[in-house]
Amino acid sequence: MPEAINTASNMVPHRKLRYAMVGGGRDAFIGAVHRKAAALDSQIDLVAGAFSSTPDKARASGCDLFLADSRNHGTWQELLADELKRDASDRIDFVSIVTPNHLHHPVALAFVQGGFHVVCDKPLVHTFAQAQELVNAVAKSGTVFGVTYNYTGYPMVRQMREMVRMGAIGNLRKVVVEYSQGWLATQLEANGNKQAAWRVDPARSGMAGAMGDIGSHAENLLCTVTGLEVEAVCADLGSVGAGRTLDDDANLLLRLSGGVRGVMMASQICVGCENDLRLRVFGDLGTLDWRQEEPNHLVHARLDEPRRVLTRGSSGLSEAAIRATRLPSGHPEGFIEAFANVYLGVAADIHARLQGSVASALEADYPRIEDGVRGVRFIETVLESSRSQQKWTVVAD
Amino acid sequence: MPEAINTASNMVPHRKLRYAMVGGGRDAFIGAVHRKAAALDSQIDLVAGAFSSTPDKARASGCDLFLADSRNHGTWQELLADELKRDASDRIDFVSIVTPNHLHHPVALAFVQGGFHVVCDKPLVHTFAQAQELVNAVAKSGTVFGVTYNYTGYPMVRQMREMVRMGAIGNLRKVVVEYSQGWLATQLEANGNKQAAWRVDPARSGMAGAMGDIGSHAENLLCTVTGLEVEAVCADLGSVGAGRTLDDDANLLLRLSGGVRGVMMASQICVGCENDLRLRVFGDLGTLDWRQEEPNHLVHARLDEPRRVLTRGSSGLSEAAIRATRLPSGHPEGFIEAFANVYLGVAADIHARLQGSVASALEADYPRIEDGVRGVRFIETVLESSRSQQKWTVVAD
Amino acid sequence: MPEAINTASNMVPHRKLRYAMVGGGRDAFIGAVHRKAAALDSQIDLVAGAFSSTPDKARASGCDLFLADSRNHGTWQELLADELKRDASDRIDFVSIVTPNHLHHPVALAFVQGGFHVVCDKPLVHTFAQAQELVNAVAKSGTVFGVTYNYTGYPMVRQMREMVRMGAIGNLRKVVVEYSQGWLATQLEANGNKQAAWRVDPARSGMAGAMGDIGSHAENLLCTVTGLEVEAVCADLGSVGAGRTLDDDANLLLRLSGGVRGVMMASQICVGCENDLRLRVFGDLGTLDWRQEEPNHLVHARLDEPRRVLTRGSSGLSEAAIRATRLPSGHPEGFIEAFANVYLGVAADIHARLQGSVASALEADYPRIEDGVRGVRFIETVLESSRSQQKWTVVAD
Amino acid sequence: MPEAINTASNMVPHRKLRYAMVGGGRDAFIGAVHRKAAALDSQIDLVAGAFSSTPDKARASGCDLFLADSRNHGTWQELLADELKRDASDRIDFVSIVTPNHLHHPVALAFVQGGFHVVCDKPLVHTFAQAQELVNAVAKSGTVFGVTYNYTGYPMVRQMREMVRMGAIGNLRKVVVEYSQGWLATQLEANGNKQAAWRVDPARSGMAGAMGDIGSHAENLLCTVTGLEVEAVCADLGSVGAGRTLDDDANLLLRLSGGVRGVMMASQICVGCENDLRLRVFGDLGTLDWRQEEPNHLVHARLDEPRRVLTRGSSGLSEAAIRATRLPSGHPEGFIEAFANVYLGVAADIHARLQGSVASALEADYPRIEDGVRGVRFIETVLESSRSQQKWTVVAD
Repeated sequence: MPEAINTASNMVPHRKLRYAMVGGGRDAFIGAVHRKAAALDSQIDLVAGAFSSTPDKARASGCDLFLADSRNHGTWQELLADELKRDASDRIDFVSIVTPNHLHHPVALAFVQGGFHVVCDKPLVHTFAQAQELVNAVAKSGTVFGVTYNYTGYPMVRQMREMVRMGAIGNLRKVVVEYSQGWLATQLEANGNKQAAWRVDPARSGMAGAMGDIGSHAENLLCTVTGLEVEAVCADLGSVGAGRTLDDDANLLLRLSGGVRGVMMASQICVGCENDLRLRVFGDLGTLDWRQEEPNHLVHARLDEPRRVLTRGSSGLSEAAIRATRLPSGHPEGFIEAFANVYLGVAADIHARLQGSVASALEADYPRIEDGVRGVRFIETVLESSRSQQKWTVVAD
Repeated sequence: MPEAINTASNMVPHRKLRYAMVGGGRDAFIGAVHRKAAALDSQIDLVAGAFSSTPDKARASGCDLFLADSRNHGTWQELLADELKRDASDRIDFVSIVTPNHLHHPVALAFVQGGFHVVCDKPLVHTFAQAQELVNAVAKSGTVFGVTYNYTGYPMVRQMREMVRMGAIGNLRKVVVEYSQGWLATQLEANGNKQAAWRVDPARSGMAGAMGDIGSHAENLLCTVTGLEVEAVCADLGSVGAGRTLDDDANLLLRLSGGVRGVMMASQICVGCENDLRLRVFGDLGTLDWRQEEPNHLVHARLDEPRRVLTRGSSGLSEAAIRATRLPSGHPEGFIEAFANVYLGVAADIHARLQGSVASALEADYPRIEDGVRGVRFIETVLESSRSQQKWTVVAD
Repeated sequence: MPEAINTASNMVPHRKLRYAMVGGGRDAFIGAVHRKAAALDSQIDLVAGAFSSTPDKARASGCDLFLADSRNHGTWQELLADELKRDASDRIDFVSIVTPNHLHHPVALAFVQGGFHVVCDKPLVHTFAQAQELVNAVAKSGTVFGVTYNYTGYPMVRQMREMVRMGAIGNLRKVVVEYSQGWLATQLEANGNKQAAWRVDPARSGMAGAMGDIGSHAENLLCTVTGLEVEAVCADLGSVGAGRTLDDDANLLLRLSGGVRGVMMASQICVGCENDLRLRVFGDLGTLDWRQEEPNHLVHARLDEPRRVLTRGSSGLSEAAIRATRLPSGHPEGFIEAFANVYLGVAADIHARLQGSVASALEADYPRIEDGVRGVRFIETVLESSRSQQKWTVVAD
Repeated sequence: MPEAINTASNMVPHRKLRYAMVGGGRDAFIGAVHRKAAALDSQIDLVAGAFSSTPDKARASGCDLFLADSRNHGTWQELLADELKRDASDRIDFVSIVTPNHLHHPVALAFVQGGFHVVCDKPLVHTFAQAQELVNAVAKSGTVFGVTYNYTGYPMVRQMREMVRMGAIGNLRKVVVEYSQGWLATQLEANGNKQAAWRVDPARSGMAGAMGDIGSHAENLLCTVTGLEVEAVCADLGSVGAGRTLDDDANLLLRLSGGVRGVMMASQICVGCENDLRLRVFGDLGTLDWRQEEPNHLVHARLDEPRRVLTRGSSGLSEAAIRATRLPSGHPEGFIEAFANVYLGVAADIHARLQGSVASALEADYPRIEDGVRGVRFIETVLESSRSQQKWTVVAD
């Protein structure tokens, strides 16, 4: 096996960070992913939590995770109160919020106002007003706030971003982002599937269905990689599954900064598609093409040259990609590793602050609250466009 | 090698058909493809022609093709006049029109009015009015009129069509058709490329660029396979290449019969894409996915089952696919073979008429003038939508 | 569609060639493939034949193909006698022999001795002694003799050969050729399958089963592309299907010129494999990888660089590949087109002789009788090795 | 995102396990992988170690990993002595040995004799005699002994194994296993690459080069999935890289239990290959095909049916695969997750013993010392065959 090329895991912080989790108890899905991502590199310890909105379930979940009783809380309010009382040497360094979407806002706001660094799942909040309130709170507290748009944690996505920045494909002309899933092709929500049930429920999921759940990832991926803003959208949202009020199939034309054209598809009714997120960026000198289901590859076409397949861990990649890499090429990394890179970025930012320094952009490479806010605004505009007869609906500044 | 499964080539007509070609002389591209397609199965002989609008070049081209001098004409008008004078035992059975687009209308009209069967390249004509005139002429003459939407000649496209018809994927919900090329990413037209030059010239190409050249194929493929009509379009057409007036990048939202949503992309500025036509049809019971660059495969996903890869020539395919197949599975067929299937369909129709019978739908499986007309109307609507601020522009009946 | 890049079809011979076929009548498979390959470019006409060893069937087959009665013969001996009587202006230019293997030798020998150019299916003959006799006859008559190792007719195989010759992958180190089919996984021969029946019958197929049928293609592909000779073999042949005496699964270690290591697998019992011929050539500077089922692609890896995918018809390919190409990149060519390239090479050689000149290696790019002889010797050595307890069996000079 | 389907991470042990690591300090590669694998599911804590044969480096490495000074040792002997003195409530549950190969034997033997459970990297030891000594020690101590043949930890490899066991592809006929890497195509060992240097050095690597490093994985994968033994081998080993004495390119014919034929290739000089381990198993009813670089897929062909692509996390998979799965389908898992499954299996075995029960085969699904012994014997036989002129060399019982 070739020389280890990883740098992320070679970073030696002065101590492990401590974190608490809100949400993510028994039966939850994404909480366990966050915990594995945080645990992977042995730099972050879970020390406290309030894992459910049901206190008994919250505590039972904490027991499963070997938490000390004193830090295994029934509610997030208790968790927050307890942490505020602790000495800095013992207190958590950050909180990770992995509740259903509708709780992101109150929990995140309270912890930020309490002076805690935060990692929050996406979509950030339900409305742009909530997002703005949160941004102001973060600005006031000066805390770190990461949003787990985890797909931008993939090394080859970062490679793609760097190549676009460096002009490897010239001036951008067109962007196509597609996120196709099939798991809501049938009415799972009618058959007791918890994950389906909250996603099709406006009260818990917000005003958007597929757009909020996966379209928000597509938007973040597109904007992060290209550096472009979505300036206007033309949305055709459908609720294909019988009885649904939220969109489960979304198709959009986009107008991006500088007049670049875009197409976005986000659908959960595509039978046979699993988690098929793909981004293609077309420039006047070349094209980049990445698919989440083969995340270790990045296809690069240059004008009048054969298509090349760049692989994670191989030579010649950007520093940003190398830092996000743990294994040599050919040794597949996956979803959790990408997720862990978001945590490493947040951790690097916190470590730097603990040491009174400032993390570089390469070290603190993670999606910020601004990404979350932009995502909320995008979804609101998409919903507005969906109801409009006009072709284009402008995204407000 | 396994038992031959071909039926097309086993069909034994009573004699070879004779045809003439208009256009397709030296330097032309598509004419040679038509000739190879017609020649492949040794059932059709090229006996006459007027291969260019320049008489000397026309005759030189005919010499290259070993035509008898008496049937090697300087103009299509001479060809038509000569054929009309000949005895039926000697006269061509049909004419194949492979001129630049703007000549399709006068040539086709004249031959139809002369009572000849016609194979005509796509797009059929420039305007819906021209198309209507041609339809009326065909109705009056009762002649066979095939349009070489060649992609629907692929066996696995026919398989896809039959599976949709038979309900293999249930009720349709969404259709995505994409046709990406990259050869116009640079301004080839400024560098003496003939194929590029006429395509970006409205006088020869018509009012549409990429939409006419390849979008028309995408539309035909979509409609042929799904059996749905495009009822409304929302088009965003771009002219990305400097100095171009016609579209080279087209992105569309579609509303199909029964409210089915569609997305179409047709672009010629996608560096690294060669001839990447792909059709995905999503139903409530399954999905079908076909790519022109891997034409011998058809991916079929069924609800909660592993994705299956159907291959041309394998067991269990539809009669329509089998008839379009020449070789056992694993022995790739390509573009010319698919093209030849259009010719075989037209030939079967003509043979049946010569024998006073009627060809079955399976035998005479080829795109008709109605397909061509629908294509013209579609493109006109797309151009109208492109200029409109309204989200949806309805396709007139 | 991009500018036509084809040169093969642009070659303008002074007249069409005439050929006769022996074998390939009703129910045969490969004969029809030969005819389509010969017809594709409209440069070769089928004018005579003896299509079966059963005279009535022979003539009925000739009728299907619209042959004149006077040239539609019941036996190949009659065909030969008739052609010998004809004037040069009317006589066939060559004969194409597509009979079962055991008839290759007598038919080819007779036509060569009659002074006719020959195209013969592979494997050439059953024994090295027969092969030698044929070589001597060809040397004496000075005729063209092509063997339809059709896979080397693929443009990207020729590209691969040229790249090896030009040193693109440096000094060769290892070659892996694999030909996996699955169609004999069950005992088709017991169920009336004609193609299976003769292949498993030593009297008609020769002493080798899969080795003769497909291993011979693998050997030719390997040697043609690499320019290496097989110097020694270590063979493990199996007859997996119940009741079979000939090999249906062959696995070999090879020692090639200069000590290069090789591995060959040829099997017809690999369920799910269709016609999966793949050649990988490893050099000290790079690797080339080609698969027959995706024949328009050639994967090229260079030391410490991303893998590149070369595509047929794209820019930068060798003259040998360009000449074998009919369509622009992205427009798939397949099995018949590759087969047709063998015919075009033979035709170019014959045309040159007709005009008193000598075809260049680029023009007359087709497998020769020497390829056929080498193939026979290889198979004999493999069978000898298969019976030996010694690791290595040397291929005699 | 679909309902979580993971069971592995839902298993709730009564406490975390504690382990020590020997080897794997700064600059090492595989140690970090072991640590990430052990950490991933938050069920195993690293509490002690002796991370290098250089005491200072050992302790510095332990500091990087936040070990307590009292458990951060300069030598493995000190580590062992210290642990033996500790109370059971504090003592490590197992030791993980990730040293260069030549130290596996003494370290493993000492810890086993000390009564500790062991996880040991592969290949187990250098000679069959050493292996036998270790087996006897394990038998005497009754301890758990896992060998990190990590590739069998992939969910879809376990799926493949279960499908073979259940008869999904019928009686086995042929097995092809291939492990191609390219990283030793050049003489990295001459350029200061540590990983290359010890691998090409017989003193540290053992008598086998590529065979020991990656051929041992290929053997284990083959035997684990098929349940067959290698009965005889015919080996052709090469040292292609200038100056090397150990094999860097190995090609083998195999005879497996019941006369099943096999082919193995293990090479480290295949430019462009990264970590291309692929196993194909052919039965009379079907074929299974798995590639490590796309580990979430398993291709399954059934007689006369379309090829199917089974995906990790999808419905209908075996219990063994489901237990090894953390994420829904479409969310890629990779190398570390597979590695972690070996640790989870060992942990389940230890937990069961701690609780006085016996883990089921499903729970304690990991490679045992017997796998390691079989691997050593296999490599010894391969080396013997490589020196032999006889075709077949039998693997001793």
